[in-house]
Amino acid sequence: MPDSPLTPDARAMLAKPNPAVIATVRRDGQPVSAATWYLLRNDDRILVNMDEGRVRLKHLRNDPRITLTAIDEANWYTHVTVIGRVVEIYDDPDLVDIDALSRHYGGKPYPRRDRLRVSALIEVDRVHGWGEQKNNDQA
Amino acid sequence: MPDSPLTPDARAMLAKPNPAVIATVRRDGQPVSAATWYLLRNDDRILVNMDEGRVRLKHLRNDPRITLTAIDEANWYTHVTVIGRVVEIYDDPDLVDIDALSRHYGGKPYPRRDRLRVSALIEVDRVHGWGEQKNNDQA
Repeated sequence: MPDSPLTPDARAMLAKPNPAVIATVRRDGQPVSAATWYLLRNDDRILVNMDEGRVRLKHLRNDPRITLTAIDEANWYTHVTVIGRVVEIYDDPDLVDIDALSRHYGGKPYPRRDRLRVSALIEVDRVHGWGEQKNNDQA
Repeated sequence: MPDSPLTPDARAMLAKPNPAVIATVRRDGQPVSAATWYLLRNDDRILVNMDEGRVRLKHLRNDPRITLTAIDEANWYTHVTVIGRVVEIYDDPDLVDIDALSRHYGGKPYPRRDRLRVSALIEVDRVHGWGEQKNNDQA
């Protein structure tokens, strides 16, 4: 991952099951945020997963740009924000991805099995941190 | 507040010192998020406060639309998102607002006294909730 903007510290922090908020933009340009599970993949892409009925999916298909802020589970004053783009959207018919997220956060497969889930992979363009992750990179 | 979209439940949740993330949009349309302190005012406007050097201030002056997701301090699975606009931006030369925020979150005045702070007041257009705050309003 020679081009990844993630430092080892940011990577270690993002690897934990932290509370996080993702924001997308509505077609009219209004930003819209929501709490989300996320999972940092080995290739430094970030996985998120949504119910197929989520309006956020429509936003992402219209404009792939996102921002995600993860708040350190152990210390709210440490947080890391990634600025990036969704580079892939695909169905998760066997619930493999949502199960991986559910296990990461709660140790169990996702309880609801009757709804189609959709995954999105985020490529990170920039990172900025605060608290123990502080840097001076402001997007 | 006959026109406020905040329900009593959402108001009670937002009144607590919850971790929160605000997102603004950059001039090129890229959403950018950051963790933030916030304070729900009696008139249902939401106060945030920034160091004068924050790039977010430039984003807000260019496009006042924001979204803020507060995560329940007691239960991460409960969260409330507000979609709104900054309706007022003003200097906080005596640090009155940042002290109010600092007391709300930590019980003490803000420690750093040598930087100009700037306040922004957010008017809420829509609210959606999850967990104990669940509703079906998707922005």
